[in-house]
Amino acid sequence: MSRIQDIYPSDRVSLREVGLRDGLQLVKQFPSTEAKQRWTRQEHAAGVRHFEAGSFLPAKTFPQFADVRDVIATVAALPGAHGIALALNERGVNDALESGVGEIASVVSATEEHSQANAHRSRESAIANIRRLCEMRDASAHKPLVNAAISMALGCSIAGPVDPKEVLRLVDKCLEAGVDFVAVADTVGYAGPKQVAELTRAAVKLAGKRPICIHLHDTRGMGIANASAALDEGVRILDGSLGGLGGCPFAPGATGNVVFEDLAFLCESKGFATGIDLDELIAVRAILRETMPNEPLYGGVARAGLPCGAAKAA
Amino acid sequence: MSRIQDIYPSDRVSLREVGLRDGLQLVKQFPSTEAKQRWTRQEHAAGVRHFEAGSFLPAKTFPQFADVRDVIATVAALPGAHGIALALNERGVNDALESGVGEIASVVSATEEHSQANAHRSRESAIANIRRLCEMRDASAHKPLVNAAISMALGCSIAGPVDPKEVLRLVDKCLEAGVDFVAVADTVGYAGPKQVAELTRAAVKLAGKRPICIHLHDTRGMGIANASAALDEGVRILDGSLGGLGGCPFAPGATGNVVFEDLAFLCESKGFATGIDLDELIAVRAILRETMPNEPLYGGVARAGLPCGAAKAA
Repeated sequence: MSRIQDIYPSDRVSLREVGLRDGLQLVKQFPSTEAKQRWTRQEHAAGVRHFEAGSFLPAKTFPQFADVRDVIATVAALPGAHGIALALNERGVNDALESGVGEIASVVSATEEHSQANAHRSRESAIANIRRLCEMRDASAHKPLVNAAISMALGCSIAGPVDPKEVLRLVDKCLEAGVDFVAVADTVGYAGPKQVAELTRAAVKLAGKRPICIHLHDTRGMGIANASAALDEGVRILDGSLGGLGGCPFAPGATGNVVFEDLAFLCESKGFATGIDLDELIAVRAILRETMPNEPLYGGVARAGLPCGAAKAA
Repeated sequence: MSRIQDIYPSDRVSLREVGLRDGLQLVKQFPSTEAKQRWTRQEHAAGVRHFEAGSFLPAKTFPQFADVRDVIATVAALPGAHGIALALNERGVNDALESGVGEIASVVSATEEHSQANAHRSRESAIANIRRLCEMRDASAHKPLVNAAISMALGCSIAGPVDPKEVLRLVDKCLEAGVDFVAVADTVGYAGPKQVAELTRAAVKLAGKRPICIHLHDTRGMGIANASAALDEGVRILDGSLGGLGGCPFAPGATGNVVFEDLAFLCESKGFATGIDLDELIAVRAILRETMPNEPLYGGVARAGLPCGAAKAA
C-alpha cells in the first residue's frame, strides 16, 4: 500500500494523461515516436506526472501502439513520472511486465452484452484474466501496480442503463482478485453528475483504503460536471486527454475523453493543487495539431486562456 | 409573489433561452424576424417556455434587436410562454413597458471598474436605474416581472477576482429596490463549481422567497459543472442558449452561454423534469446553422445524440 501512496497520494489529486492510449485508440493518423516523446516530455515539464503510454495489442491491428515500449521508456526516464500500459491478454501482460512499465491496466465490461460483443468473452473470463494478471505481477521482479477499469460502468452502448449494483459487484471482484485500484469508466459519456456521485460514493466506500479512479468521456458535455461530482465523493485519480483527444467507437462523431486542461482548471478552482502550469500544458496542444491536423481539439481553457488575475500553479 | 410563482415555479427548473438576446449580442450576421419567429415557435413546440426576446437598445448600434417587439409578440402568442427583454435606460424601460413584455431585465456590474468601463456609470447609478424601473413597473398597467442581473459576479475581466460580499451587497440592493428576482452572472466564465456553490448558497439564503437565477458562460468549459453546483444549492432558474450561441466581448474567440441542450440534459439527469424534448430541441439548431453559417455551435448532446435507452421527456 505504501507503493500506491507514493504514486497516487491520497491527499492530492492525480490527473492521468490518457491521450497517448485512449486518445489514439481510434485515430487513423498518429504521432511518430519522436512526437509522442516530445508530447510526454513537454507535459512533464508542465507538471503532468501520470501517463497512459499505450497498449500491448497486436501492432498489425493497432500500429499506433507499436512503439509502446519507447513511450514507456521515455516516461520512465522523467523524474517522478509514472507510466501505465493496457494489456488485455496473457501475452500482453508478459510484454508489459518485460517492459518494466509502472502500472498495468486491464478492463472488464459492466454488462455481459458489451463484454461478449466487444471482447468476445464473458465478464467472468475477464475477471479471471485480471486475477491471472495479479498473480503474474506478484511473481514479477518489479511488481508494477495493477488497475482494472470497469468500462460502460455508467451506461452501456448496447444494454443501455446499467445497474450500479452490478458495477459494485465487479469492483468487488476486481479488488478480491488483487488489483491495486479500480477505475470506473463512463466509456460512452452517458452519465450526469448525480449518477456519478452515487456510484463513486459507493465505490469509494467499498474500496476502503484502495483508491478509485474515474475515467470520463465528454460525449454529452457532462465530463467536467461529472469530474466535479467524483471529486466531491473523494475520488482523487482522474483521467483526461489533452484537447479531449479521442472519439468513441460507439458514438461516431462524439468527443473523446474529458479535456485534460479543463480538468486541471476544475481541480485548481476547487482548491486541489495539481502542480500543473496550465499555460505550459496548453502549449503542448501544438504537437497534436501538427501531427494530427484532422483531429478536432476541444477545451474551454485553451480557447479562452486563463482568467485575468488567476494565480499560477505553485 | 403568486405571479412569479406562476412563471417560475419554485418546485421545478425553468430554463431560459437567452440566445435571441445574449446569443445575438455580438454577431455580425443575424436571423431575420421570420427566422427568429421560427426559432421561438420550434423551441416552444419542443417544450421551452422562457425566452429572452431581445434588447431595447438603439437599433442603429444593435440592428439585431430592431425587431424586438415582433419577437416579444411572437412569444406572447405561444401558450404558456414567457418573454423577457433587456432595457438599460428609462427610454428603453418605457419602450419595454409599452411592448407588453412579461419581464424586464436590467444589469449592474459587480465591480466599479467594469461598471465605469462598460456602462460609463457607477454601480450606484445602475442601482438607481433599477429602482426607477421598479417604480415604473408599479405604475404600469400590466406590471411585468423585473429582474436585475449582477454581471461579472464571479470574476471580472477588468478587476479580476470579485469579492462575493460585494456581490451579495448588490443582490441586497436590487432586492431592496423591488426586483422580483436577481440573476447572478458569470459573464466571462471565470468560475468553477465551488465558487458558484458558495455564491449561490449565500444569494439563495439572502433572497428568501424570491428566486435566484444563474447565468453562466461556458468560456472555460465549466458551464455545466457550474450549473450543476447551482442546482445543488437550490437555484431553479438557469439561462442558456441553443448551441451555446454567443461569444464574450471580453474574451475573443471564447464560447458563449452555457449550451441549452446540454443544460436540459443535465437537469433531466439530476431528476429535474424540464418538459423539453431533447431531440426536438436539437432539431432547432438547423435554423441557426442556416441563418448564421459562420457562428460555431457547441454542445455534446447534439453531437452524440441521446444515450441508448434514455427516457424521453414527459
